[in-house]
This record gives sequence, C-alpha cells and structure tokens, in this order.
Amino acid sequence: MRNIKLVIEYDGTNYLGWQKQNNGVTIQGTIEEALKEVTKEEIDITGSSRTDSGVHAKGFVANFKTNSRIPAERFREALNVKLPNDIVILKSIEVEEGFHARYNAEGKTYSYTILNRDVPMAIGKDYFYQVKGNLDVEEMKKACTYFIGKHDFVAFKSSGSSVKTTVRTISDLHIENFDNYIKIFVTGDGFLYNMVRIIVGTLLLVGRGKIKAKDIERIIEDKLRDKAGMCVPAKGLVLEKVFYENQK
Amino acid sequence: MRNIKLVIEYDGTNYLGWQKQNNGVTIQGTIEEALKEVTKEEIDITGSSRTDSGVHAKGFVANFKTNSRIPAERFREALNVKLPNDIVILKSIEVEEGFHARYNAEGKTYSYTILNRDVPMAIGKDYFYQVKGNLDVEEMKKACTYFIGKHDFVAFKSSGSSVKTTVRTISDLHIENFDNYIKIFVTGDGFLYNMVRIIVGTLLLVGRGKIKAKDIERIIEDKLRDKAGMCVPAKGLVLEKVFYENQK
Repeated sequence: MRNIKLVIEYDGTNYLGWQKQNNGVTIQGTIEEALKEVTKEEIDITGSSRTDSGVHAKGFVANFKTNSRIPAERFREALNVKLPNDIVILKSIEVEEGFHARYNAEGKTYSYTILNRDVPMAIGKDYFYQVKGNLDVEEMKKACTYFIGKHDFVAFKSSGSSVKTTVRTISDLHIENFDNYIKIFVTGDGFLYNMVRIIVGTLLLVGRGKIKAKDIERIIEDKLRDKAGMCVPAKGLVLEKVFYENQK
Repeated sequence: MRNIKLVIEYDGTNYLGWQKQNNGVTIQGTIEEALKEVTKEEIDITGSSRTDSGVHAKGFVANFKTNSRIPAERFREALNVKLPNDIVILKSIEVEEGFHARYNAEGKTYSYTILNRDVPMAIGKDYFYQVKGNLDVEEMKKACTYFIGKHDFVAFKSSGSSVKTTVRTISDLHIENFDNYIKIFVTGDGFLYNMVRIIVGTLLLVGRGKIKAKDIERIIEDKLRDKAGMCVPAKGLVLEKVFYENQK
C-alpha cells in the first residue's frame, strides 16, 4: 500500500480537537470522511498529535495508507474540494512505507498568543487569550531561558494521560511582542498533556510579578503541578510545525 | 444635553455595516439598542463614517447626546455588559456640546491585510483577503509613494455616493509585510466611497506586474474608474483610528 503524508492547516474553533470521537465533530473524523469520498476506501488517518478542542494548527502532520492510484500531489486539491473551509490540506506527498506521523515526529513548534489589555476584545476572540493588568514582558522573556534544556516536566502536565517518561527537551522558548500582543513560541522534542498551556500559565505568574524569572528553576525541580501556573485556554494555541528527519 | 464620545472596536463579520437599516442587524442599531436599555432614552448615535458590511474597526468614533446623569466613563462598562461580544466600547468620555464625530473628523487611518499564498486559508478567513500568485511587494511599496499628497481621487470611487468634491489628501500610505501577510496602512483627511479598497486593488495590479509603480501617477491624472484596480473584498479592511483636533 502507498503511504501518503499530509500537512494540514485548521481552525479548531468548531471542532472537538483532532482525535475521532463518538459525540462530536473532529478534524480527524472530518478528513477521514472526505478521504472516503475521494478514495472509496475506509481509511484511518494517523495524526502527529492530539490537539484539544479549540486548538488551531498551521502545520499539523498526518499520514494514511491507501490502494488508490490517485497521484499523491492530487490528494491536496481533491480533499480541499470536499473539506469544510476551516480545514485545508497544504501539502500531500508520498512517503516511504514505514513513515508514521506520530512515532517519527522528532519535534514540534507551538505558538501561543496573549492579548494584554483591560477592555474586552471584539476581534479575534477565537485566536487570542486576553489577559488584563499590565504584564512584565521583559521578565517573562527572561523566564523563558530557564525552561530550555532537558528536564523532567512532570509539574507541567495535566492528569489524565499516561506516559512512560515525563522528561522532555525544550530547544527553544521565546517571546515576540508587538502592540499589546504577546506571542510565545516553544519548540521541543515532544510535549506532555497540556504542557505548552501550563508553561504559558507559569510565564503569566512571572508577568504578573507573583514569581521571579529565576523561580522557574525551582518549580521544575520541585516536580509539583500546583507550583506551576494555570492551564491557559486552548484558543490561543497553534501547532505551527512538526519536524521529521529527512522529511520535506 | 451632555455630549458623549465613544471609541468602538468591532468585528464587522456578522453585521450589515455601521449604518442603521431596516433589513438587518447593524453596528449602529445594536449600540443604540444597548444605549436605550442603559439610559431609557431613544438616542441617535452619530458615527464618524459608514463602514460597509464585513469591514472591521479598532478605533471607530461616534457621539451621542443624552440627559442621563450616568458619569461619562461609566457608559463604557454599562454598554459592554449589554452589547454582543463582537462589539466593544473601548472608551467613553464627555466632550464639548458642538463635537460631531463625522463633521469634526480631520483624518482616518485604515489598514488592509492580504494573505499572499496559493492554498486556501483555514484560519482568519474573516480578516484577510487571500491573493494567489507571487506578488511583487517591493514594487507595491514603491507604488504607495505616488498616492501620497492632495489629488482628485475620482478614479478610486465606487458609484452610488454623492460628494461635493473628490479631492482628498493622503498623508501616508505604506506596507508592512511579514511571512506571506501584506498589511497596507493608509491615512488621509477623508476617503471616497470604497476608495481604500480600490487603492488596494490598484496596488494589486502593481504587485501582479500588470502595471508599474510609476503608472499610478497617470491613473490618478486620467480620472477614469476603469483604469484603477478592482474594489477588493471588505473583510481585509479595518478602520484603525479617527483623528480630531484637540481630542483625547
């Protein structure tokens, strides 16, 4: 069977996340339905990760096996015709038989955008998390550096997921700000359940002056969930990119 | 009667523009209803301009007269409680009796955002206008300079509006681009009907190589609507700011 890799952009606002569920519409389920129309096959798509309800993606990766003879590049357009306009296939290419979107993923970049102002926002409510009160962005930028490296991030994990190890490596964490938007970018070899959103919640403790940048070191060492910050809402989160070795 | 000035942010996606109409929901109508609930008065609000259906605003200005004794600053919160969450009052202050949001406006800044890429977009469809094919942004930036100054902009006006003069002064027109987003900012003492959207359409002729930057000069001089570009869709347009003399 042929193995096709997809790069997908989606607006997660109206979906119960990536993973198929019985009680609602998901990205995976929606793409599988379109794929069935295109190939007449019942296909299970493998996603690079589960994204939660409301999380967006600009470069989600998935793969699927098919007997269809449709040229790999044609899947992009064929699927886009069938899909609702908040899910777009950016790329479809044929990859080696053993490629697995989740197991072979070597890293991911997420972004999270905060709008820091006191009055409610009328524009972009589904894409930004609003934080009131003045945030100390410079101290937040300093705090970012303490997360970088290989650490046990168990304090930054929501319960309800079982993993072999809670050690992860963050290779980059930095903030870009303009006007009153604060955009946090994080790249790592993998992320625990809600890890990005809890890191952002912890950076907010720094921004609000509740803790200092250097306190991050101790919070990581203490390994206690309640020392870290809140899990911020899904809507500010975007899966920007998934990295693979030797993959276009 | 007291005269209250409002600064308003709104997402125009679900409205038939600013101005009240009998056949649908408008920003003006929605705010007037909220104002009636707050003051128990029938109030006509004066807007700084009419924005079309789908146009957004980050700094629309309006004013209204009232006998209510509610402190001016309190209108902001009182109205925000009543308004749907895609309309937000950013500021409410008392101004001199003669202040008129439209007649006293000395200038406005609009922005228009283009997403330049070939695959459809899943995120932000209500806020960006997608243009396929590679645009020559540097040539577009050069073209901007030819619009600046006092000119008869009759070629950049849709029919269906009557004005005394079609001479306007553009004090600034420039482009900021990042990734494949092209954001055009224009400031002037006033704009003809659809003028900003037709200027953007004309810049697109330049970006596509159909005309050169310096051709703008001739298009303005010729005063013919069909020499200028198309009127691009409303959704990319944002009224950023309205300027008044001696006004906070």
